[in-house]
Amino acid sequence: MRLFIPHFRPALARRHIVRTLAPSKIPCVPFLPRYPLGPRLYCNQAQTPPPIDDDMGKDDKASKNFNLKVPKGTRDWTGEDAALRDRLFDTVTDVFKRHGATTLDTPVFELKEILSGKYGEDSKLIYDLQDQGGELCSLRYDLTVPLARWLAMNPSVQSFKRYQIAKVYRRDQPAMTKGRMREFYQCDIDIAGSYDAMIPDAEVLKIATDVFDSLDWDSYTIKINHRKILDGMFKAAGVPEDLIRPISSAVDKLDKLPWSEVKKEMETKGLATDIADKIGYWVQRKGGDDIIEFLKSDETLSKSEDVMKGVQDMEQLFAYLDAFGARKRISFDLALARGLDYYTGVIYEVVTEGSAPRVQGQQQEIGVGSVAAGGRYDQLVGMFSGKPIPCVGISFGIDRIISIMKARGQSTQRAKDVDAFVMAFGGKGFTGMLTERMQVAQELWAAGIKTEFSYKVKPKLPQQFKQAESAGVPLAVILGEDELKNGKVKIKVLGIKDESNPEKDGVLVERASMIAEIRKRLNAEPRAA
Amino acid sequence: MRLFIPHFRPALARRHIVRTLAPSKIPCVPFLPRYPLGPRLYCNQAQTPPPIDDDMGKDDKASKNFNLKVPKGTRDWTGEDAALRDRLFDTVTDVFKRHGATTLDTPVFELKEILSGKYGEDSKLIYDLQDQGGELCSLRYDLTVPLARWLAMNPSVQSFKRYQIAKVYRRDQPAMTKGRMREFYQCDIDIAGSYDAMIPDAEVLKIATDVFDSLDWDSYTIKINHRKILDGMFKAAGVPEDLIRPISSAVDKLDKLPWSEVKKEMETKGLATDIADKIGYWVQRKGGDDIIEFLKSDETLSKSEDVMKGVQDMEQLFAYLDAFGARKRISFDLALARGLDYYTGVIYEVVTEGSAPRVQGQQQEIGVGSVAAGGRYDQLVGMFSGKPIPCVGISFGIDRIISIMKARGQSTQRAKDVDAFVMAFGGKGFTGMLTERMQVAQELWAAGIKTEFSYKVKPKLPQQFKQAESAGVPLAVILGEDELKNGKVKIKVLGIKDESNPEKDGVLVERASMIAEIRKRLNAEPRAA
Repeated sequence: MRLFIPHFRPALARRHIVRTLAPSKIPCVPFLPRYPLGPRLYCNQAQTPPPIDDDMGKDDKASKNFNLKVPKGTRDWTGEDAALRDRLFDTVTDVFKRHGATTLDTPVFELKEILSGKYGEDSKLIYDLQDQGGELCSLRYDLTVPLARWLAMNPSVQSFKRYQIAKVYRRDQPAMTKGRMREFYQCDIDIAGSYDAMIPDAEVLKIATDVFDSLDWDSYTIKINHRKILDGMFKAAGVPEDLIRPISSAVDKLDKLPWSEVKKEMETKGLATDIADKIGYWVQRKGGDDIIEFLKSDETLSKSEDVMKGVQDMEQLFAYLDAFGARKRISFDLALARGLDYYTGVIYEVVTEGSAPRVQGQQQEIGVGSVAAGGRYDQLVGMFSGKPIPCVGISFGIDRIISIMKARGQSTQRAKDVDAFVMAFGGKGFTGMLTERMQVAQELWAAGIKTEFSYKVKPKLPQQFKQAESAGVPLAVILGEDELKNGKVKIKVLGIKDESNPEKDGVLVERASMIAEIRKRLNAEPRAA
Repeated sequence: MRLFIPHFRPALARRHIVRTLAPSKIPCVPFLPRYPLGPRLYCNQAQTPPPIDDDMGKDDKASKNFNLKVPKGTRDWTGEDAALRDRLFDTVTDVFKRHGATTLDTPVFELKEILSGKYGEDSKLIYDLQDQGGELCSLRYDLTVPLARWLAMNPSVQSFKRYQIAKVYRRDQPAMTKGRMREFYQCDIDIAGSYDAMIPDAEVLKIATDVFDSLDWDSYTIKINHRKILDGMFKAAGVPEDLIRPISSAVDKLDKLPWSEVKKEMETKGLATDIADKIGYWVQRKGGDDIIEFLKSDETLSKSEDVMKGVQDMEQLFAYLDAFGARKRISFDLALARGLDYYTGVIYEVVTEGSAPRVQGQQQEIGVGSVAAGGRYDQLVGMFSGKPIPCVGISFGIDRIISIMKARGQSTQRAKDVDAFVMAFGGKGFTGMLTERMQVAQELWAAGIKTEFSYKVKPKLPQQFKQAESAGVPLAVILGEDELKNGKVKIKVLGIKDESNPEKDGVLVERASMIAEIRKRLNAEPRAA
């Protein structure tokens, strides 16, 4: 049995017992919450395999005594990948702004003391800056601690709907976690503040559906559950306090392991078989309103205060999701546990085909984990403020989403977005018409049309076509001396295969209506999503 | 006499004698060029003063034993500033893409050895990562060395038009350079490759005019000059080889010091008075074609091979700029010198009102330096490749541009872009209409309208208006139970002062045509640029 799937970081592998600031440093907080941030980042941590040209850890012996490479665990982004990623960011940002969120951009490094003690065992993965005589700093490990710091520095801000899309840094050990990047994007949106219950929680889920709908994903599932329901179930089953976390981790594996395996794991951890059986009876259920009915009608669970509080929240949430028209992707899944420690309310995880982990014994493609995850964590972002600031949010797994978009053919496979290529041809005495090409290019730029032309004074026509085609430019504007004298230019949509298409060899248009004619054909052009 | 103006880094203060890789490490390059990158970044290095809430270096004693601050020289970006900056990035990126450029995104840190030896004296400003047992790395200092590394790693790429907008890191000493940031954005576009002369050089200048025109700047100047012309002038005047750089630095100060001061500085550096006079006779000239005429007709300069080669380039450049319609902002300024060492051809600097340095003795506002600068540097980006890769580019001073945009009122002064606020009111028995507010919000989001609503179940009307107004939302959608029963909603443009405006108190519209009615009023709304 293989517990560790590449790019998949089981919560069990990471013990997130975290000490917060020493009591003397936390004013007015009698209770010391624990803030493990590892599991929250579950979906972000498992990364797609590095691309073929990434030389992770290899010395480039061929480069003449010089180590010409990016640092281990990092990569350059360019071409098609960069274009796809930027389009994803534009889409996501658009949705965030539509919901009234504003951005918070924080420095790439924080004071070392700000990050210390926040990540438990994972603290050894923090990149420190060298002591060069000033403040000791470390590269940021996530975006939640910076948010908490900003909130504490701005105590007059009582409510904050913020998104941040930025790179974070973790000195993961490749031997342990093959293919994992050390520099990668996180994409978070959080709604911090005290509001009437479940309203922002519902909006965050609505934001998630808006994002994946904007990406034209027609099949994805948002698994949701509630910390209090899990707490209540475990208590009611009789799980000892010190086993709650390992048991939660075990339950969380039901999305990829059969119950028999999970039960075995629970027993290995010291759980009595009958308790395990009770849990198994309860958690292997998912659905919608029927799950609420089940919880309310179960003899034991209906008597649990925690469970009933969770149910009350879920009922409210469902009503709001209905108002938002966002119910259809939701799956109330009692086996969803995630890292429980800092979640205090609803929790969720978005999965899609190609992202769900393989279930042993079933014929499913090996996925790469969830594509987004989050929940409510009321004790977290107030960590520096001296008082809790309720917060609910979600984190999108950028790398995973990109690899799924590529697998689904959502990449244009074009690095450049250039729409038009201005070229010229002529016979004997051809001057290259560079001035004319530049003038035409300038008109197209002024009209907002993305345009290039050859940087040669006298380019040959085949070379210009080659340059246009290899860049994937869909349309050529071809200048000829005689045509131009007569006030005409030729417009040619490239790559027309249909011999019967009257425009297969281009069409002569009036110079004066060139822009309109170009736009007409560009808009008609079928483009990859 | 105050030579050092805050935020202004005279090139003289930095000696950029840089050693490249040791000869044994550079294959096939018999000549060791010197690569000082400091002066190039002249316009980026002088930063705007930190905003009032930036606690540079101050301990926050009030924060109860804990140092709650950003590291020295860094800042958070949020609210109006972040919105303005993101709009600037969108504008600039739009122009870059229109010209067929693609992005290259590199890691925030490079192998230490990649950055070593590239920045001369400034090397002490590099942030190193701590040695934590792996590769030694440093935070990137600029975007040119990463570009050079990438080109060397991808030798099949012969031509590359790339932009990169990213933060760079320099451990500047605040005592020396008050107000200077240690983390700041650079925004570069470069065209690398061998092309027919001056074509990409002209396109880079066209890109610059497109950027500032897109920002609606109606007054800016692009000063241009040519390395060979300066070389030729200095040689012809008799400047000794070892004085060429200090003399160039002195000449470069003519934009803010009177000739008498500059001449004095030259003499202090050891230049003979008659030589200084010759230079003074030549360099204090700017214009257009008339400067070309002057150079061609000057008895001494017309005999200089360097000067005439430079003139030939400039003539070609002017012809191309004419074809692009980009001549009108150009000032051929013989006093523009910048850091000469790595420029090999045309050089340029963009200045605007409020950005030009104060000239002593003249009543001009204290500016903050240029807003963009660059040139041709054929020996630079091939630094790792073993062969020169010709390159021409420009770097935009993001922070400076932003402060000028703010000074010119180009900021919306709105952190959020939210267009519509959905609210509800009612008398006795008012339920809060949360479900209805959510449903309406969902319709608006689906229509791409940025919308918010109060997260209270039963909000009071005044509180909802206050929330909308403090966020600067221009339009309210007001739901009432009776109105809704009759299939109507009220739309109110907020802040109408004109008492005679029939819509001052809002207008009832059909629910079915709500979106159209909202769009009509949003499009009519005058918005800050």
